[in-house]
Amino acid sequence: MKCKRCGKTPAAVDLPSHHAAFCPDCFFVFFRRQVEDGIRRFSLLAPDDRVLVCVSGGKDSLVLWDVLMELGYRTEGLYIDLGIRGYSDRSKEKVIAYAAGRGKEPIVVDLRAEGAPIPEAARISRKEECAVCGTVKRYFFNRIAAQRAFTVVATGHNLDDEAARLLGNLLHWDGDHLARQHPLLPETSDGLVRKVKPLWRLSELETASYGFLKGIDFVTEECPMSVDATSLVYKEALSLIEDAMPGTRSKFYSGFLRFRNVPEFIAKSGEDDRPAGTCGVCGAPSYTETCGYCRLKEKIRKAMEQR
Amino acid sequence: MKCKRCGKTPAAVDLPSHHAAFCPDCFFVFFRRQVEDGIRRFSLLAPDDRVLVCVSGGKDSLVLWDVLMELGYRTEGLYIDLGIRGYSDRSKEKVIAYAAGRGKEPIVVDLRAEGAPIPEAARISRKEECAVCGTVKRYFFNRIAAQRAFTVVATGHNLDDEAARLLGNLLHWDGDHLARQHPLLPETSDGLVRKVKPLWRLSELETASYGFLKGIDFVTEECPMSVDATSLVYKEALSLIEDAMPGTRSKFYSGFLRFRNVPEFIAKSGEDDRPAGTCGVCGAPSYTETCGYCRLKEKIRKAMEQR
Repeated sequence: MKCKRCGKTPAAVDLPSHHAAFCPDCFFVFFRRQVEDGIRRFSLLAPDDRVLVCVSGGKDSLVLWDVLMELGYRTEGLYIDLGIRGYSDRSKEKVIAYAAGRGKEPIVVDLRAEGAPIPEAARISRKEECAVCGTVKRYFFNRIAAQRAFTVVATGHNLDDEAARLLGNLLHWDGDHLARQHPLLPETSDGLVRKVKPLWRLSELETASYGFLKGIDFVTEECPMSVDATSLVYKEALSLIEDAMPGTRSKFYSGFLRFRNVPEFIAKSGEDDRPAGTCGVCGAPSYTETCGYCRLKEKIRKAMEQR
Repeated sequence: MKCKRCGKTPAAVDLPSHHAAFCPDCFFVFFRRQVEDGIRRFSLLAPDDRVLVCVSGGKDSLVLWDVLMELGYRTEGLYIDLGIRGYSDRSKEKVIAYAAGRGKEPIVVDLRAEGAPIPEAARISRKEECAVCGTVKRYFFNRIAAQRAFTVVATGHNLDDEAARLLGNLLHWDGDHLARQHPLLPETSDGLVRKVKPLWRLSELETASYGFLKGIDFVTEECPMSVDATSLVYKEALSLIEDAMPGTRSKFYSGFLRFRNVPEFIAKSGEDDRPAGTCGVCGAPSYTETCGYCRLKEKIRKAMEQR
């Protein structure tokens, strides 16, 4: 099959949801345009932004960094070492090697050095690994952005991630989370940085193909903590539907973004109007005297002492 | 495993979504209560109603008729012979045999005699079989109810049916269909009878178990026209999620019924405020001079003549 865009070179990527198939070069054009359209639709990024790109070593985040650099944005990469034996070390290597190839050096936060590695944090706080990991990561996204004057934090969530999350939120009619689900979370007056998901229009197949064809060397293993994640079940269910009806996933998420403008769609509880103070320990924005991250860290410290 | 209700008899039905397992007698009690709760929640039926139960010969509709009789409602069964070779004949036999066992005789509408058997109607109108079948059935539900003074039409849609339909409507953000999805569709001023789905709280596993344990002889084959139905894909996707997280399907549909009370949730387009007139051919309520069913029938008649 020939590429449907140039009509010359054999197609390398088949995209039933777009009724298209592209050769590598035309696929890169298609991919960049999709990212640009996604950015433009919700004004995710401005040319003078300083973008902190959160990179895990997996395909989505490295592809995000890659394409944002190609589009000419000013970016730096942030790698958070979760302290997961083996997996974290292999991921960090990939991030450092990728950055070096572009003449960059990632900012690295080491959760072991910070006293909050995820496996211990989850065990001691008796919470799900993915939940604790989310809390800790968000904390450092904001902290590093504030310390180093980044104007925006970008994460590599793709269409499959967002559609799966939407399905989960709808299955549970979770008004709070539905209210917060969007490619753009604006900065808040109390100091939380703007957060954006520029890959929201790109499927996992598309980000993987881009990474592969660009020769980006990413970690292919899944995080060992996420094997039981419910999001994987939602992804599997949506894949089943996508296979039978290509394009459904994309219509589902785009349709939601139009539908959610209806103000009453979203339970008001999504908004927290209390003015936030600052954490007495670390100075981060916080609704409580000590922020969630500092309380978690203190809990871990005490548990370690008692050993 | 013993029955979780009586603690004596061995359990015959295991229901992970209810954290329960029942012996046959206790399951019947559970099942009837679920139906009664479902009826009460939305005032689907009143004691003085004359209920037209639409029976296809499958498990759900025969179980519905059975349990409504047990609960003391005044019911008659309506069987619509769709004119599908083999399948329709076998279904009709089951309905007649079931009714005879209860000293009843179903009302039968024969679509071949009416000039609108589904396979020909779908082919000639170039529409999907399931869509045409829905139009034709709704027409006769209303017509028979009006002719014979029934106050309400009851169909056997179960929780799996409704959850799958909801998922489909959400995947496409179909405001019209979301607005009309409810166990109760009230009667309209222009002559459409009230329609209810008393089994909306019961899963397919539960209706099948009830039918089996009650010794109801139903058609087990699926309608041959429905093999490609998209609803089957949605059902499969939800089953995958239900297996991993029992109870999700029920919370999904119940949550929707609470959420949909938010008036702006539903696109206003769901409501058609034009006053309906009556069909010039058959006298049924209709927004057009000739109703959809009569136009379909005329199309089939002409196509047959031209042969």
